[in-house]
Amino acid sequence: MSFLDKDIIAFTDVLASKASVPGGGGASALVGAVGTALGSMVGALTVGKKKYAAVEADIIELMKKAEVVRGELLKQIDEDARVFEPLSKAYSLPKETEEQKAEKARIMEACLREACSVPMEIMVKCCEAIELQKEFAAKGSSLAISDAGVGVAFCKAALQGASLNVFINTKSMTDKAYAAELNKKAFEMLDKYVPMADEIYNSVFDRLKPAE
Amino acid sequence: MSFLDKDIIAFTDVLASKASVPGGGGASALVGAVGTALGSMVGALTVGKKKYAAVEADIIELMKKAEVVRGELLKQIDEDARVFEPLSKAYSLPKETEEQKAEKARIMEACLREACSVPMEIMVKCCEAIELQKEFAAKGSSLAISDAGVGVAFCKAALQGASLNVFINTKSMTDKAYAAELNKKAFEMLDKYVPMADEIYNSVFDRLKPAE
Repeated sequence: MSFLDKDIIAFTDVLASKASVPGGGGASALVGAVGTALGSMVGALTVGKKKYAAVEADIIELMKKAEVVRGELLKQIDEDARVFEPLSKAYSLPKETEEQKAEKARIMEACLREACSVPMEIMVKCCEAIELQKEFAAKGSSLAISDAGVGVAFCKAALQGASLNVFINTKSMTDKAYAAELNKKAFEMLDKYVPMADEIYNSVFDRLKPAE
Repeated sequence: MSFLDKDIIAFTDVLASKASVPGGGGASALVGAVGTALGSMVGALTVGKKKYAAVEADIIELMKKAEVVRGELLKQIDEDARVFEPLSKAYSLPKETEEQKAEKARIMEACLREACSVPMEIMVKCCEAIELQKEFAAKGSSLAISDAGVGVAFCKAALQGASLNVFINTKSMTDKAYAAELNKKAFEMLDKYVPMADEIYNSVFDRLKPAE
């Protein structure tokens, strides 16, 4: 099963439903991909323009990287569904006998690890996308500057969205050391890239904003 | 032509290209719709649960409203393309003679007004979506709390994204009084709803975040 061939209305329909997937993780991957696509668009509107000939080689390089990141984020939509579905089933396993309790705990822990792995990866890709947007905003055509600003706002929101999906799962883990390790990595990404995204967005906003 | 029947990969492909539409406005409408859908999902995971029987009627009401807002945001994806395409063509009208200059200025101004109208409407709908998320986050199932947080982060980013598409167009308007009126409305929405969205997001984050 893939969500990638669903049209936009159908995707938001199934997202809005009580179906266990897609959820906030897959939605974050999509929003990150949409943000990354806006960076690519800035690049596409910059190459071939005389005014930007000096940065053309850089822009082409950025566009190649952005296409890879977008492809990886889109893949994570299905990956998130693949790892989340077993977790949602594990929640309803019986826990009447001691044996069932132990078995449920064992399965839950394995599912939680899996369910964290994808939003962690989405976070990594959103950080890469924010780095790319920084350069698209700085070097891209000023006619498309608003798109770089919109793109970075989306990549930041996707990074934050994925982080909530890490934290809700590490919270339930019994292996507290492993949970702490993931949380530390997630915080490091948030602490570095949320302010970076805000700085890029604000630089675009300052270039566009009217006197209030 | 509609972008609503494009699958997710195809939509991000055309967004990433140098095609004039969809752009940052349509992408903002999509991200707002995705955020709103996550609120609906919180609702869907709350109704029918004994623990939340007391708020069930409220949740059903919120879900109805969210479905309307999502439908309106999805429609704005095509609307944004409809109003932006003439503007992108107007930019390349000739301006060699005085007559051509005057004609181009007249057409540009009309196109800019049209091109602002849709991101303004997207902003209005994102504000409504943020109001709804506030209640989903407060009343919805705590098992789905992360989805309410992700949803509000997306609606905020979409609100900001749409605002950049208002400001880039009002900047070029010659009717400065009309431009100022639109900017004022846009700032009022940003000033009220960005902090509200941050507050909702932070309340979810505080419930989920581990000790650092």
